[in-house]
Amino acid sequence: MTLAPVEPALNETAAFMEDALQEYLPEAVGPQARVIEAMRYATLGGGKRIRAFLVLQSGRQFGVDRRALSRVAAAVECVHAYSLVHDDLPAMDNDDMRRGKPTVHRKFDEATAILAGDALLTHAFTLLAGHETHPDPHVRADLVLRLSQAAGFAGMVGGQMIDISGKALLDDIGQITRMQRLKTGALISFACEAGALMGRAPLQMRHALTNFAHDLGLAYQIVDDLLDHEGDAAVLGKAVRKDEKAGKATFVTVLGAERARAQAEILASQGAAHLDVFDEKADLLRGLVDFVVNRRA
Amino acid sequence: MTLAPVEPALNETAAFMEDALQEYLPEAVGPQARVIEAMRYATLGGGKRIRAFLVLQSGRQFGVDRRALSRVAAAVECVHAYSLVHDDLPAMDNDDMRRGKPTVHRKFDEATAILAGDALLTHAFTLLAGHETHPDPHVRADLVLRLSQAAGFAGMVGGQMIDISGKALLDDIGQITRMQRLKTGALISFACEAGALMGRAPLQMRHALTNFAHDLGLAYQIVDDLLDHEGDAAVLGKAVRKDEKAGKATFVTVLGAERARAQAEILASQGAAHLDVFDEKADLLRGLVDFVVNRRA
Repeated sequence: MTLAPVEPALNETAAFMEDALQEYLPEAVGPQARVIEAMRYATLGGGKRIRAFLVLQSGRQFGVDRRALSRVAAAVECVHAYSLVHDDLPAMDNDDMRRGKPTVHRKFDEATAILAGDALLTHAFTLLAGHETHPDPHVRADLVLRLSQAAGFAGMVGGQMIDISGKALLDDIGQITRMQRLKTGALISFACEAGALMGRAPLQMRHALTNFAHDLGLAYQIVDDLLDHEGDAAVLGKAVRKDEKAGKATFVTVLGAERARAQAEILASQGAAHLDVFDEKADLLRGLVDFVVNRRA
Repeated sequence: MTLAPVEPALNETAAFMEDALQEYLPEAVGPQARVIEAMRYATLGGGKRIRAFLVLQSGRQFGVDRRALSRVAAAVECVHAYSLVHDDLPAMDNDDMRRGKPTVHRKFDEATAILAGDALLTHAFTLLAGHETHPDPHVRADLVLRLSQAAGFAGMVGGQMIDISGKALLDDIGQITRMQRLKTGALISFACEAGALMGRAPLQMRHALTNFAHDLGLAYQIVDDLLDHEGDAAVLGKAVRKDEKAGKATFVTVLGAERARAQAEILASQGAAHLDVFDEKADLLRGLVDFVVNRRA
């Protein structure tokens, strides 16, 4: 089977989400305009929008309205953006550049960056809970519940805590895998699950999507580590090999580049196999797997 | 009319909420235990729990189940605790002490404090969205919507942004009032509204409670500024006169202590008057107004 390349669809999604986020983010007016400017700076004008793509494509399997999906996709992108803003802070990873631009605390200041992250996280829940997101309030409440679980102590924040706790907790591949499943996997998994929740998908299909998401998320992270290792700061738009230099374990430092590459490919085909229960409407999700493994940035 | 003193009821609520938060906060286990410990440290063992009291008492007007109210009260306390953790950070107010204990970033470290705040904010939405909070998912989604609006760029975070932007934006009483309505008023207002939402109160009663909350919130803040001005660090459990020393405008620096005190009393009686539509079940809310104006810490 030959799949159509996924790049045009990703580019279309990126443009669509730029418009959606322009609309769903508040306007930078009023005496608190500065924090809104920082929210917009952190969220607009960049990123591959893979999480948004997953929301839109998973919802498409069940015929969910694209406009409604765009609100959930925007919520996920707000949570992703907030996590980057806080992770980049001096007290965390202390990064100066992100997507080729100064990080939020460099462009504004640390206090504004902390507040902008807080406001983006909060805004995600405003988007999910609004009645335009879904006519059934059960679905809206479920989306809030699942996103909050994916983003909090048992998900993304928990993973970041383990990550910055450093070497002591991360000396084998099992521990790194568990950390990444929380740090990046939980939100990717929510992105896939959201479309199923909105489309009231049968449990079997919902599980197929979350299993797909787990494999995709890990493959994505391994490739991130590989790109960071091979590192071209100009292409990636951020500093490279910081983890390695800091002596932090990554998939590459523990497995070596060759085995890490092989592992990403195994995960990719395993992930794609979970999609066998779907028809050709899932071809873009299948194509995404290849894109993730073969990307150069 | 003589009101029963509100202190015993506040003390009972504080003990009840300590148990509730013990139950609703996650257990500090697993590789991310550190961030959970910090969440618990920030939330348990202190505070007057006035916001929780408002949730419980406003819900009581409409016969709402106390167990369900305790989840919403806990969510509000989580948001309040998160805001203190982030406001205390070196990049914000740089405070070392809070409620007589080291602040979270002093007890743990800055990165853990940022993450614990993020996780507490996120956990508030897990609590609201869970089906135990209310059988009607409309109510749960509405609670999420209103809390996210009260806590975000148009509420608490917006107010904090204005506050740290400093003197330029805060040179008259109108501006200070608007800032405080966002920074502390919005969450207090949500606490009062939540009980009405859960009890599907008539709009008139819901508005009476939010009007009451606005006056109470401002009176509370003016008294905070007065206590800070008269300042006894040992009684307050935190550093005093920091704002004044930093040249920041407060109700006291702009109005003077005497007029500020008079203003708090006007707001208090105005606030109590909004409760005229309620019967004697609202006596503890009426009593709270006196408590807030006359408190010494």
